Amino acid sequence: MFCFVETDAALSAETLDLLFGVCVKRSFDRISVDGQLSTSDSVFALASGASGVRVEPEGPAELALGEALDALLRQLALDIVADGEGAARVGRVVVEGRPEAVEPVARGVANSPLVKTALHGGDPNFGRVLQAAGQAWPAGDAFVADLEIEGRLLVSAGDAVGLTAGDLGELGESMQAPEVEYRLTLPGEGGETEVFFSDLSPAYVEFNSAYTT
Amino acid sequence: MFCFVETDAALSAETLDLLFGVCVKRSFDRISVDGQLSTSDSVFALASGASGVRVEPEGPAELALGEALDALLRQLALDIVADGEGAARVGRVVVEGRPEAVEPVARGVANSPLVKTALHGGDPNFGRVLQAAGQAWPAGDAFVADLEIEGRLLVSAGDAVGLTAGDLGELGESMQAPEVEYRLTLPGEGGETEVFFSDLSPAYVEFNSAYTT
Repeated sequence: MFCFVETDAALSAETLDLLFGVCVKRSFDRISVDGQLSTSDSVFALASGASGVRVEPEGPAELALGEALDALLRQLALDIVADGEGAARVGRVVVEGRPEAVEPVARGVANSPLVKTALHGGDPNFGRVLQAAGQAWPAGDAFVADLEIEGRLLVSAGDAVGLTAGDLGELGESMQAPEVEYRLTLPGEGGETEVFFSDLSPAYVEFNSAYTT
Repeated sequence: MFCFVETDAALSAETLDLLFGVCVKRSFDRISVDGQLSTSDSVFALASGASGVRVEPEGPAELALGEALDALLRQLALDIVADGEGAARVGRVVVEGRPEAVEPVARGVANSPLVKTALHGGDPNFGRVLQAAGQAWPAGDAFVADLEIEGRLLVSAGDAVGLTAGDLGELGESMQAPEVEYRLTLPGEGGETEVFFSDLSPAYVEFNSAYTT
C-alpha cells in the first residue's frame, strides 16, 4: 500500500510532519484487513506551497488543514478496509479499559478469523468476540467485560443479557449494514482505542489461494 | 475440544501427571486450527489400575507407557488439525533461533491468513512466510532468515535463492501433499519449536459464517 497526499499550502516540514503524524495515528494505524503488514505500507504527505497560503503553527489555517487531513486520511483508510480482498462489510471495534490492554484486545478481536467470519455472516456472536478479547487480555487480572454490538448490550459484567427473539431479529438485521460496531468495556480506566477491520469471506480465500507467486 | 485418554495401568497420580504433561506439551500445545482457543479445550488422562500392571517412576514400564502416550496424543492432536473446519492440508512450521523468539514466530506463521491461504492453494509463497515471521520477530535485532519448504532452500540469509522453473514445478507438486513442512532458521541459538496448522479454505469461511448462534 502506497498513499500520497498532496497540498499546495505553504507550511514548514515540521508543521506538516506534526499534523500528518497525528492524522496517520487516527487512520492508517487503526485499520486491519487480515492483520498482516507489508514492508511497503507507506503514507506520504507533500506540500508544494504553490498556493502561497501560509499555514502557521497554532493558527486557524493549521486547524483547518489538520481537520481536512484528518477527514481525508480517515476516509482513505476506511476505503482500504471496505475494499479489502473479498470484503463485504466493515467492523469497528472500540475498546475501553486499562491503557496497556486496549490495543492488544482490539487487535485480537479485529484479527480473529471467528469474529471476521461471523461478521461476514451477519451473526451477532458475542461468544467469539469475548473469546478473542479474553485471549488477548494480559494474564493476572480477571477478565470481566461489557459488550455492545450496534448499540445493543449483549454482555453485562461478563454475563449474557437475555434478549427476546424480537431483539435478536432486530440485531441480526442491523448487522447487515455496511459497518457494524462492537464496543467492549473492560476492567481499568484511562485507555480507549478503535480498530476498523474487514470481514472474512470465501472470496478472500479464493483471492489469496488461487494464484502462484 | 474435550479429549479423554484412559489406561488400565496402575500408577500414581504424580507419575501420570508428569508423563501426561510432557506429552501434552508435544501434542495439543503444538497445534492451531485458526489461532482461537476455547475455554473448554481440555485433555484428561485417567488410569484405573484394573490391569494390575505397576508403572514405577523411572522404570521400563514408565518409558513404554510414556512412548505410547506420546504417539497417541500426537496422533490425536494432528487429527484435529487435519479435521479442522474445511481443512484440506496440514502445515508444519519448524523454527530454530533465539529461545524467546521461536514460539511467537512459529505462531505468527501458523496463524497468518496469507500463509494459510497459500497453503490451501499449494503455493510455495516464501514472501508471505517471511512477512509473518518478521512481524512476530521481537524488535531490536535484524531479521535474517533461512527458509526451506518441503526440504528445498528458498531463502538463504534473507536472500531469495534462484530456482529454475523445473525446481518450482517440483516444489509446487510437493505442496499438494497432505502435509507441508516449512523450516525457518533465525538469528540466535538454543531455541527450537514446531506448530502444526490447518490451511484456510473457502469451506472454513462457509462453516463459520453460515449459521447464527
